[in-house]
Amino acid sequence: MTDFNIILFDGFETLDAFGPAEIIGMMREEYNLEYYSINGGIVTSNQNIQVNTKAITEVKPSSIVLIPGGIATRKLVYEDVFISKIAEATLNASHVLTVCTGTALLAKTEQLNGFEATSNKMAFDWVSSQNDKVKWRKKARWVVSGKFYTSSGVSAGMDMALGFISDNHGRDAALNIARIIEYVWNENNGIDPFAE
Amino acid sequence: MTDFNIILFDGFETLDAFGPAEIIGMMREEYNLEYYSINGGIVTSNQNIQVNTKAITEVKPSSIVLIPGGIATRKLVYEDVFISKIAEATLNASHVLTVCTGTALLAKTEQLNGFEATSNKMAFDWVSSQNDKVKWRKKARWVVSGKFYTSSGVSAGMDMALGFISDNHGRDAALNIARIIEYVWNENNGIDPFAE
Repeated sequence: MTDFNIILFDGFETLDAFGPAEIIGMMREEYNLEYYSINGGIVTSNQNIQVNTKAITEVKPSSIVLIPGGIATRKLVYEDVFISKIAEATLNASHVLTVCTGTALLAKTEQLNGFEATSNKMAFDWVSSQNDKVKWRKKARWVVSGKFYTSSGVSAGMDMALGFISDNHGRDAALNIARIIEYVWNENNGIDPFAE
Repeated sequence: MTDFNIILFDGFETLDAFGPAEIIGMMREEYNLEYYSINGGIVTSNQNIQVNTKAITEVKPSSIVLIPGGIATRKLVYEDVFISKIAEATLNASHVLTVCTGTALLAKTEQLNGFEATSNKMAFDWVSSQNDKVKWRKKARWVVSGKFYTSSGVSAGMDMALGFISDNHGRDAALNIARIIEYVWNENNGIDPFAE
């Protein structure tokens, strides 16, 4: 059983975090979903959902970390303590996944330097301006590079999560989850209808 | 500003509730998202998300109510106090929306009697067996009947939420939200790829 840790913060975008949670949660025998924030306690999403969290210092090494985006990232990229905590939580993770502007937070840790990555299209210029050592790819539903999975905006996180399942547990496992949750999976990560 | 109230309970399915929350939350000028449970306090989703809620008795009349599904509904349909609280919260609502097996909970209140409704496909026989006075429609992504919006499984709630926006605020408003969250909207509610 592997911990799949989702890092939350005030102003996180709900579906960035909880779309992937829905999908990863279908692999009950494989993953234990946990929710963290910098200090633990209640954090509130951009859609007014109050979520109880553990402190990020409790994230175990060699587990998996997902970072959502949201309007709050516009300020968080400048908060050094926040970014250093994100760096600590992700440095020894076996995989790190980001959704939407969550990619900007990871980029600020410098761990994405030299790797390919994407982000959502409406904020792409801002996200890519956070770190020019990342190999930014604009046209992609999601990108896999090293241990990093980065996705386009909001809903793309669900397609990426199914891609993560497919890569690690086989395509049939991903298709089965999509069928159970009645989700039309955009399976080809090179097809990005929002990149134009 | 209208309250859009999402009713949660232990074992609710995450995306049933929070997919629509993502979409409705984009209409910041129109809707105020609130989260309730029978007694208030923390409830935990089927994907281990602990959410802080208000007590259901605080739901205002003439507001909108959404009921998610989840594995917990299999027992909740037999809990008379729970069903009567759901009935009270929905009776004077201007609209009631259900996702997945949340339709079974609403059907138990008898308010759907004589109306058309759908639910998810893998649990369809069980849901429709809860009340034979409902006009069940198996092949539909979502169904609108009177003040009731009912949807198929999990992800279908997002398509329904966009349908609700389209019906009440125009198709352009729905398409704009889909574009912002990079979601490929299954716009035609008669197309149900999971009904076969």
